[in-house]
Amino acid sequence: MGAGVIGLSSAYHIISQEPSAKVLLLEKALSPGQGDSGKSAAGVRTVFTSEVNRLLAETSIDFYLHLQNDLKFPVNLELIGYLWLMTARVFEDFSPKIETLRKNGVPLKIWEEKELTQMISEARLEVKGDDEEAKLMHLESIRKGVQGVKCGTIAPERLVEFYANEIKKMGVEIRYGERVQSIIVEPTPKLSLPSEPFVWERVNFSGVRTSNSEFRSDCTILALGAWTSSLLDPLGIDCHIRTKKRQVFTFRGPKIGSLVNSRGFNEQNVFPMSFLPPTNIYMRPNRPDSSFWVGVSDYVGRAFTFEEDPIAEDTFYERNIYPVISHYFPAFVDARPFNKWAGHYDMNTIDGNPYIFGESGLIAIAGCSGSGMQKADAIGRIVASAYSKKDSATLYGGKNFKVSRLGVETRDVQHEDLVI
Amino acid sequence: MGAGVIGLSSAYHIISQEPSAKVLLLEKALSPGQGDSGKSAAGVRTVFTSEVNRLLAETSIDFYLHLQNDLKFPVNLELIGYLWLMTARVFEDFSPKIETLRKNGVPLKIWEEKELTQMISEARLEVKGDDEEAKLMHLESIRKGVQGVKCGTIAPERLVEFYANEIKKMGVEIRYGERVQSIIVEPTPKLSLPSEPFVWERVNFSGVRTSNSEFRSDCTILALGAWTSSLLDPLGIDCHIRTKKRQVFTFRGPKIGSLVNSRGFNEQNVFPMSFLPPTNIYMRPNRPDSSFWVGVSDYVGRAFTFEEDPIAEDTFYERNIYPVISHYFPAFVDARPFNKWAGHYDMNTIDGNPYIFGESGLIAIAGCSGSGMQKADAIGRIVASAYSKKDSATLYGGKNFKVSRLGVETRDVQHEDLVI
Repeated sequence: MGAGVIGLSSAYHIISQEPSAKVLLLEKALSPGQGDSGKSAAGVRTVFTSEVNRLLAETSIDFYLHLQNDLKFPVNLELIGYLWLMTARVFEDFSPKIETLRKNGVPLKIWEEKELTQMISEARLEVKGDDEEAKLMHLESIRKGVQGVKCGTIAPERLVEFYANEIKKMGVEIRYGERVQSIIVEPTPKLSLPSEPFVWERVNFSGVRTSNSEFRSDCTILALGAWTSSLLDPLGIDCHIRTKKRQVFTFRGPKIGSLVNSRGFNEQNVFPMSFLPPTNIYMRPNRPDSSFWVGVSDYVGRAFTFEEDPIAEDTFYERNIYPVISHYFPAFVDARPFNKWAGHYDMNTIDGNPYIFGESGLIAIAGCSGSGMQKADAIGRIVASAYSKKDSATLYGGKNFKVSRLGVETRDVQHEDLVI
Repeated sequence: MGAGVIGLSSAYHIISQEPSAKVLLLEKALSPGQGDSGKSAAGVRTVFTSEVNRLLAETSIDFYLHLQNDLKFPVNLELIGYLWLMTARVFEDFSPKIETLRKNGVPLKIWEEKELTQMISEARLEVKGDDEEAKLMHLESIRKGVQGVKCGTIAPERLVEFYANEIKKMGVEIRYGERVQSIIVEPTPKLSLPSEPFVWERVNFSGVRTSNSEFRSDCTILALGAWTSSLLDPLGIDCHIRTKKRQVFTFRGPKIGSLVNSRGFNEQNVFPMSFLPPTNIYMRPNRPDSSFWVGVSDYVGRAFTFEEDPIAEDTFYERNIYPVISHYFPAFVDARPFNKWAGHYDMNTIDGNPYIFGESGLIAIAGCSGSGMQKADAIGRIVASAYSKKDSATLYGGKNFKVSRLGVETRDVQHEDLVI
């Protein structure tokens, strides 16, 4: 279930590894990637503090490069870098992580304030001591830039298209417009009494119900992201995630365009996917139209909610993002978003790594925490191994990954400090 | 907030350790222990696979013994044992745990089928091969009993009364009938604009609102169990728990009375708090009226829900418990419950240990997972240390416990295999 990037990648790797498998993919929307995949800011990065997240992301990025370079299927992956702009204080706090990341082979560049000022078109990195408004917002001068090199942006719709095309060729049936309403729980043997299952019955998850049909399967895979709890909560199975609305606002215009085309950070001569202190407001350049996609993750005050079709709030941009972004980048002064949308994070607030777990014919993937796009290929491989009841998966490039590491009781991950 | 056993113990240890603290305890009910504390089956045990859970329970039980024996405040704690009745298969699976538990100083007795048959009044431990009904329920012959020795039952209302009395003497004000409706989130400085807090604001949790008043505090402590998410979800703070209804049914009568008074398991000559295979249906003897309290935790099929005042379902007993309990114990044949009630587990389905976490003036305790009563004293001490910003707490008996072990990012616990 779920023709987002995680469900598509899972179907792709299952059918690739077991060509004789009969795979049916059910999706409520009328085309792939219409849920939170399509709402993603679609950054990719290897800068994670959790080794597991790094491994999932690195090998997935390598696979996406392979698609693009070897298979000649462009997914618009551009390694323009992730740039964290830092105050002196933030840089000091972050420094120990720089060492650890580098030790673990994550390439990073450090920029000084002077270099940043030269490269960024019309930045205002300095915060003056008498700037009362800046003080109110806890803004301080930007002194450093930390750039993840194997990081950048991708086109979600292209990645989704790749997997969707390939699985169709390999015989996977995709049914769009099929909203799953419940999972079929079947005791063995089935007594057909009301209020089954009873505690003394053994149960099997044997398929799903939509409004019109029942689909029976040996293995039911939930790749539903923020929709997961709507099917698992009624069964009393914890999906271990909470969902939060996340919003994207887009900007273009001559000044914005000049900022997008800042030179020196990368060979594309484009402003990297960047983050502003103190709250990690992000600016994602979109080269095709020289625009920026802008957003920020709000924590305290943003309720855990789920909406079928969430809507981005102008006031959210105006009050939370505008005062900060327009301070550091005057190109944003008086700019109004030309587009906006909203999706969800399905957040694992415990360790920030994904979950792949299940039993009795059910596999659920959850908790990608806003970085599912960039880990989707590796996750699909691990799901395929879970489907085949293999202990480990071979990630792109040949590294092995123990499936149980992403489980619940057998979990073996590190806390992710960089959920953004 | 919360005059359940956890909130009361927390208030007790805070005021004991800092007599000058000004502590106000708010409770929605009109007396203490009216929520899930009062609905508890009120077993206490040291048989946990998680070292942390063991430590919390052991030292709390020691404190309850101290209340009773040294302070002469009876809390009706009787160490009558926890008895897991096991099939050959269940015993085999459990055996590695027996070794580990014993190594860790948990006293256990193992009973053979013959001994069980002699000691238990009119048990039917054997399941005949041609018993189709038993087969349907996956019932097998009970071959062994594993008895936790430092385990038993307690009277929740007495324990709650102890803490409530003591804190009043020490100057804690308890206001009953005060339902907290929200937590006050205050940005510093406060701009008093709509939709605060903004992402660039620093926030402080500076008290709570009830329907009539605001209460301001330096430290706001949530000891709300299953009610926690109603206050934290709107703030977007994950309480890491899910809530499930749990039900208790009580039985008495001459045959039940004989079963309660089974001799040989303990010096009280009473049937221990016992668990039946394969689903851990429990039977808790209640000596004052020679009755049994009976219940079972249902997992798949029991939705995560929360009700203000949940109601026990007769059909739940009839279909889930009756066929099994009446099979092994004919005393239950045709017996009808004379009382029943329902409460909740606030479940940590990840590791089964409690959480004590917070920031910016907020401390939340959650995830006691159905064993809060038996850990309440230790948890109260840890909360008191968290309140005083101490790194560690001294549990009853003198052992030190690092507060951060029960936190989220700094978590250091073992998976609990025995949530029952």
